[in-house]
Amino acid sequence: MSSIPVRSDPFRPAKRVAGQKQDVWTIVNEAATASPVQPIINMGQGFFGYNPPKFVTDAAKAALDRVECNQYSPTKGRPRLKKALADAYSPFFGRKINPETEVTITTGANEGMLSAFMGFVEQGDEVIVFEPYFDQYISNIEMPGGTVRYVPLQPPKDGTTKTSSAANWAVDMAELEKAINPKTRMIVINSPHNPVGKVFSKDELQAIGDLCVKHNIIILSDEVYDRLYYVPFTRIATLSPEIARLTLTVGSAGKNFYATGWRVGWLLGPDHLIKYVSAAHTRICYSSVSPLQEAAAVGFEKADEEGFWDESKREMRAKMTRFCEVFDELGMPYSDPEGGYFVLANLAKVNLPRDYNFPPHVADRPRDFKLSWFLIMELGVAAIPPTEFYTPENAHIAEDYLRFAVCKDDDVLEKAKERLRGLRKYMGET
Amino acid sequence: MSSIPVRSDPFRPAKRVAGQKQDVWTIVNEAATASPVQPIINMGQGFFGYNPPKFVTDAAKAALDRVECNQYSPTKGRPRLKKALADAYSPFFGRKINPETEVTITTGANEGMLSAFMGFVEQGDEVIVFEPYFDQYISNIEMPGGTVRYVPLQPPKDGTTKTSSAANWAVDMAELEKAINPKTRMIVINSPHNPVGKVFSKDELQAIGDLCVKHNIIILSDEVYDRLYYVPFTRIATLSPEIARLTLTVGSAGKNFYATGWRVGWLLGPDHLIKYVSAAHTRICYSSVSPLQEAAAVGFEKADEEGFWDESKREMRAKMTRFCEVFDELGMPYSDPEGGYFVLANLAKVNLPRDYNFPPHVADRPRDFKLSWFLIMELGVAAIPPTEFYTPENAHIAEDYLRFAVCKDDDVLEKAKERLRGLRKYMGET
Ligand SMILES: Cc1ncc(COP(=O)(O)O)c(C=O)c1O
Ligand SMILES: Cc1ncc(COP(=O)(O)O)c(C=O)c1O
Repeated sequence: MSSIPVRSDPFRPAKRVAGQKQDVWTIVNEAATASPVQPIINMGQGFFGYNPPKFVTDAAKAALDRVECNQYSPTKGRPRLKKALADAYSPFFGRKINPETEVTITTGANEGMLSAFMGFVEQGDEVIVFEPYFDQYISNIEMPGGTVRYVPLQPPKDGTTKTSSAANWAVDMAELEKAINPKTRMIVINSPHNPVGKVFSKDELQAIGDLCVKHNIIILSDEVYDRLYYVPFTRIATLSPEIARLTLTVGSAGKNFYATGWRVGWLLGPDHLIKYVSAAHTRICYSSVSPLQEAAAVGFEKADEEGFWDESKREMRAKMTRFCEVFDELGMPYSDPEGGYFVLANLAKVNLPRDYNFPPHVADRPRDFKLSWFLIMELGVAAIPPTEFYTPENAHIAEDYLRFAVCKDDDVLEKAKERLRGLRKYMGET
Repeated sequence: MSSIPVRSDPFRPAKRVAGQKQDVWTIVNEAATASPVQPIINMGQGFFGYNPPKFVTDAAKAALDRVECNQYSPTKGRPRLKKALADAYSPFFGRKINPETEVTITTGANEGMLSAFMGFVEQGDEVIVFEPYFDQYISNIEMPGGTVRYVPLQPPKDGTTKTSSAANWAVDMAELEKAINPKTRMIVINSPHNPVGKVFSKDELQAIGDLCVKHNIIILSDEVYDRLYYVPFTRIATLSPEIARLTLTVGSAGKNFYATGWRVGWLLGPDHLIKYVSAAHTRICYSSVSPLQEAAAVGFEKADEEGFWDESKREMRAKMTRFCEVFDELGMPYSDPEGGYFVLANLAKVNLPRDYNFPPHVADRPRDFKLSWFLIMELGVAAIPPTEFYTPENAHIAEDYLRFAVCKDDDVLEKAKERLRGLRKYMGET
């Protein structure tokens, strides 16, 4: 065996995990720790500042007392949860969903989407993603060897001067059609949209769906914010049987029940797609967390009688209104969300002090990273720079925006507003 | 755009999930449902027939009342769990484990191992796996494009006639060395071993470790049954600093705390390996289930004072002894386990009726599949045919064995024994 050359660097990582630049979460957290204003008000990451509803945590506690709820679940998910989802979603889809063949449970929406890509994407296949995008899409597409094709949503032309609906972030259908080629295998849609807050209109979805039918492209419709919409909400899978047979719809108990740490998600869709998602999921996680699947099942069984969905939407809409008042006061434009719990504010009017001392890894990045750093250091409010969710070529589109998550207690929102009023002295003529 | 050819089959799955033969779990479950003997006593899959200890489920319930325990955890895991693991494992490793850089939390051991392969294996790299293997290893290695090199453990020569220690399943070091080539990137070791019940001896581990150091091969040491050993247990990472710098050790709260459905696992190892496992895990699951991470942390903090580890080992060893009595009675040899909760019994002496009507997908498979089917249908006891954990070339090695999981209540074990006594009439001269 002496003829075998000794591997020089056994610790060399695979390319898929090597040499990433520092991600936005690390930068924001570091800044938050270093800020002189403590404690920071964190409106960055989209986790809830309050607990899941009691009828759901009670169900989780009850599950913990049952032997079978603590052991491996079937790889496709617990029958009770699959049935609860089929029952809850059949009315929305206008047809009877088969819980055995058209539902599969995953470890959060995130691993669910990875499972979909792993199920259908081969080396060199292409997947279309709109910018800005939820950042995990990219690594999830690249992991099975896929290539991402980006199509930017176009912000409202007067976004730097005027507040208007998030609906005004537009899909350029010509650009979308140009991005399609024989390698295009899937497209990802996200509605309600993170971070834009847009709910795609029926016409937009019809146009996208028609293109996918024409070119036989699988649609991965990320609808994790599906219970939080403030304008009419259309699910693309409901537009026609031709579109439905191409569509996988993604959901998340974490988002639905204020429990992002529970890691229970699902995909709904036709058997001929779902079965390969399940097959991939089995190879990735084997099965998903049992007691919290059981709790999510109870959540869906009881949510209507508890009036939870209405309350959830009403409360989040109220938080959004409450928080955005501060931008109205400041005369700072924002994209008024049609859904979800994120709002993009446009900070073009904020003058960053010319001689401000940004660390090199922030100074290197677009203006929104500097805005984010500045707000954390000077005001003690953390928000996310959205150019992280763009390719470098298109980052300029969002460099004046910051993303705020409003899924926090009202008193936290009020404190954040009070601090943000401090922006006034950095606004106006330079 | 009319020049783009329409994709003919949009539903064609990726190769990695296509065209698998029916897996053992499906076959066994189907048989169990179809059996005339109901209810079946299921000693097949390795889930526990009883609940986690109360101090751990109580901790889970308490976590469900805390806002931050229901929201996203840091991608590398909750600080409390990382610290609890570092504190619990530092004494075993004879050095202070750094909770920030040398521990990473994963979604079960399963996704932890996938993360390790995703972190280091590139297309065409090779990974050595002993047969029989835990079946998920294979798809987890193949997902990043790796190729598996198999090295069979050699069963005791007199295994069909005599009970002897599982230690007698031997590593053929010459075969192992022959499997190494310049593409070899990693090796997987599993001790205590599923399904053999072998605890690798210090000498065996030293020899394997030395080979890995010589050829710079990363060692993935799957020690999920690390609290269940009935002979002295050595962790390969403790043998030398040269071996330690190549070793990732895998653990599972599911196995440690009787909660296979909780999906909390971890890897321990040097910073230069752990950081890429974490990077891959972030891209796969983002983060792992928060309230059950918190419960696992409390589990590790309290297990010693509760006397849990000693009790756990003592109870499992007693279950093993209790169950194996029936094989002694029957004069049926088995590999006496040194660890874990599986026992391989050798059923060479059972004469399957010549004209027995096996369904085609069982008739096609080695004799152990027929034995498994027969036991389910005739006696109402489910066990796993271990040739599922072999390549076709080496399957003959295990075709007389069946794997029984003894992590069940004592009365279930007694019922299983009573039923297995029914084998007597199929034994003896034909
Ligand atoms: C658009 C979008 N999709 C998917 C996810 C992931 O959801 P989960 O936590 O269920 O994995 C998020 C989380 O922020 C999201 O914003
Ligand atoms: C040897 C071995 N490794 C890993 C696992 C997976 O452990 P987990 O349930 O923590 O993913 C198992 C489960 O049976 C196993 O037997």
